[in-house]
Amino acid sequence: MKSLKIGVCGVGNVGGAVLENLTNTPEIVASNGGVQIEIIQVGARKGKSAVPYDLDVVTDLMDVAENPEIDVFVELIGGCDLARSLVKKAIENGKNVVTANKALIATHGDELFEFARNKNVQIGFEASVAGGTPVIKALREGLVANKVKWFAGILNGTTNFILTKMSVDQSSFEDALKEAQDLGLAEADPSMDVDGTDAAQKASILSALAFNTPYDFSSVSYGGIEEVSAEDISFADQLGYSVKHIAYGFIDNGTVDISVFPTFVPKDQLLSQVGQQMNALEIYCEGIGSTVYYGPGAGPRPTASAVIADLVDLSNGGWPESSKNNINNVLSKECNHKFSRYFKLDVKNEAGAIAKVSSLFAEKNVSIEALIQNEIKNNSIDDTHVPVVIISGELSDKEAISLKITLEEMTEISGLVQQLRIHNAL
Amino acid sequence: MKSLKIGVCGVGNVGGAVLENLTNTPEIVASNGGVQIEIIQVGARKGKSAVPYDLDVVTDLMDVAENPEIDVFVELIGGCDLARSLVKKAIENGKNVVTANKALIATHGDELFEFARNKNVQIGFEASVAGGTPVIKALREGLVANKVKWFAGILNGTTNFILTKMSVDQSSFEDALKEAQDLGLAEADPSMDVDGTDAAQKASILSALAFNTPYDFSSVSYGGIEEVSAEDISFADQLGYSVKHIAYGFIDNGTVDISVFPTFVPKDQLLSQVGQQMNALEIYCEGIGSTVYYGPGAGPRPTASAVIADLVDLSNGGWPESSKNNINNVLSKECNHKFSRYFKLDVKNEAGAIAKVSSLFAEKNVSIEALIQNEIKNNSIDDTHVPVVIISGELSDKEAISLKITLEEMTEISGLVQQLRIHNAL
Repeated sequence: MKSLKIGVCGVGNVGGAVLENLTNTPEIVASNGGVQIEIIQVGARKGKSAVPYDLDVVTDLMDVAENPEIDVFVELIGGCDLARSLVKKAIENGKNVVTANKALIATHGDELFEFARNKNVQIGFEASVAGGTPVIKALREGLVANKVKWFAGILNGTTNFILTKMSVDQSSFEDALKEAQDLGLAEADPSMDVDGTDAAQKASILSALAFNTPYDFSSVSYGGIEEVSAEDISFADQLGYSVKHIAYGFIDNGTVDISVFPTFVPKDQLLSQVGQQMNALEIYCEGIGSTVYYGPGAGPRPTASAVIADLVDLSNGGWPESSKNNINNVLSKECNHKFSRYFKLDVKNEAGAIAKVSSLFAEKNVSIEALIQNEIKNNSIDDTHVPVVIISGELSDKEAISLKITLEEMTEISGLVQQLRIHNAL
Repeated sequence: MKSLKIGVCGVGNVGGAVLENLTNTPEIVASNGGVQIEIIQVGARKGKSAVPYDLDVVTDLMDVAENPEIDVFVELIGGCDLARSLVKKAIENGKNVVTANKALIATHGDELFEFARNKNVQIGFEASVAGGTPVIKALREGLVANKVKWFAGILNGTTNFILTKMSVDQSSFEDALKEAQDLGLAEADPSMDVDGTDAAQKASILSALAFNTPYDFSSVSYGGIEEVSAEDISFADQLGYSVKHIAYGFIDNGTVDISVFPTFVPKDQLLSQVGQQMNALEIYCEGIGSTVYYGPGAGPRPTASAVIADLVDLSNGGWPESSKNNINNVLSKECNHKFSRYFKLDVKNEAGAIAKVSSLFAEKNVSIEALIQNEIKNNSIDDTHVPVVIISGELSDKEAISLKITLEEMTEISGLVQQLRIHNAL
């Protein structure tokens, strides 16, 4: 049987699960993958007390990257600075690398992959997107014969959990977030999840694979879910949609738009049915249409599953090398793709107000596909304004924001106008 | 760039799509997969007229299997006898093999894989299950670090199309089948699809990968969708289920049950939302839970996509070799797994009849989880009997069939009793 000697840096949740799997059940990988994975050294800044197995533990992580006995360096410490130094050192020493670090790949991917190519080693990063669901494998191996036209993904479990709670249990955003934190699904500081950074990093990795663009997280336009209200979710439901935090990537004529925003998804589409903390990715290819990959997007065991799958792949020759030398697809700094839109406005409860709003849409040459104005209930606190929902024709982000601002300036409209994308899977 | 020299036998729908992709758009595979695939020879029994490309075409397929210039023999003729001879000859000549032939793998898999191992070559068969959706890759590579506990799949596009039509458009089975035939989704003789043979072959392939069992199609118990009535589908809908043709595989203590039957699937589960001719596979692993793979399960381009993905994999070292020498899991000849059940009976419209039916369930120690008896409409043709639906507790196939027979013998019940499994994804 083949054997693979590894060094693991980082013994947090994911690192712990990797050590546990390889130490307690090595027969699974031996039997399924035909390889014996040997942990030569573990780097843990807290030292041996952090590692409940009889392994060689060092506190200086650089020792692992420089250990001449290991074939693969496994980076599970997270963050960008030290992780980058460690990975570069390991590559310099001729080692393959496996990492779960989406921030590292999304920020320094091009540099690291080029460095690895020059040293004739490879970097596995299946665990960086969608955890235990093998979406990177599907994208670069399973679909290798096809041109990807677009992808749409639910890539952050925390925000999907919150949106699901808000929809199914009518929780407020705050209550849903608190529940996610209590369940260990959200960090004490949840901002990277909630504001869309985490999903945007993952989307930029998918873009590099799907569209052969640079790894350039700074070109992704994104927004979080804080602005989504219980009222939006209720209107979505009424109109036949779920609200999901959708990472969308699209190529048109060599220009690629990547963005992540809360989005209305029609209920007859699979993505709208992805609940709780689950992730899913729909990849649309010319000729074959959509394939969808669904599963646990985070958590120690799913992420460890992806790390170990990369190790087995490396023991077996690694991955096809896409010819990055012909990158000619441009990553657009703003998303120009057009979406139908949901607008929610509080309109003055007076004759002619709705007509004026409609006229503005007509003036701007924006079609109104649907309009809902519910009756004001008698016990309503505010009967001077009435919530109105408009489903518009297709607009770019820029056009939608410009329309939103113009609407907010109208005297017939009070407060802020909400606008959200509507996913169109064609 | 790497190069791979192939010979292709079979130029029907799938073979044609493989030749088209590799001839017209070789830059896709070169760019995504880093390999130049060269078609050295094509075997077409009809000769050069069947191949609209400038390629070396021979009518004796054995010539391709014996051609010393090719690295990979691609078998796309279907059927078992000639395909088996060709594949064995190619392996004997030291060539890797790629096939889309589920019947071949499900029937002769063990023989062929052992022969290949002895000759130090590999056989790719991604295209044999779920067409363009890379489920075999997910199972043996993406999930390599995990123990599969069960899988449930919609593996036949024709039957899923028919069931979807019967549900959404209230078509009869006959009309839905005719529509599938008109659209090219069903063969003129659709029996292999409709009676479950096709799905059962695919399920036996998944079992070998998921549970390390022999490739033994004869151990799969299966039934078709002909018996599913519009009334069953309407009751399913009323009770919160879709009716799907589910291939189910389960391991318990080294014993594996594989079966394919029409099954009630709760509407809150992703599999119930898989419509039209699409395929989907849910794989449940210990520790990480369910992942689901959805996509086109048939058709020339999706199937060609899987064939080419296998070729790229072979150019890159092939697949992990699971250690088949420690097969110790037994494939059970009958499915002993217990499912809740749907029973539909036509009960005499007279006092005490339902009570007698309920007593029989109690006598047999089978719980009744739900019972529906709708009012007889005034304009009903037959008001002497009333349809009754019972959702029972968990029963094995044998127990369910025995109960069905006993019910049919009751004088209070007229005609045949329908019984279907209810999928429980726990």
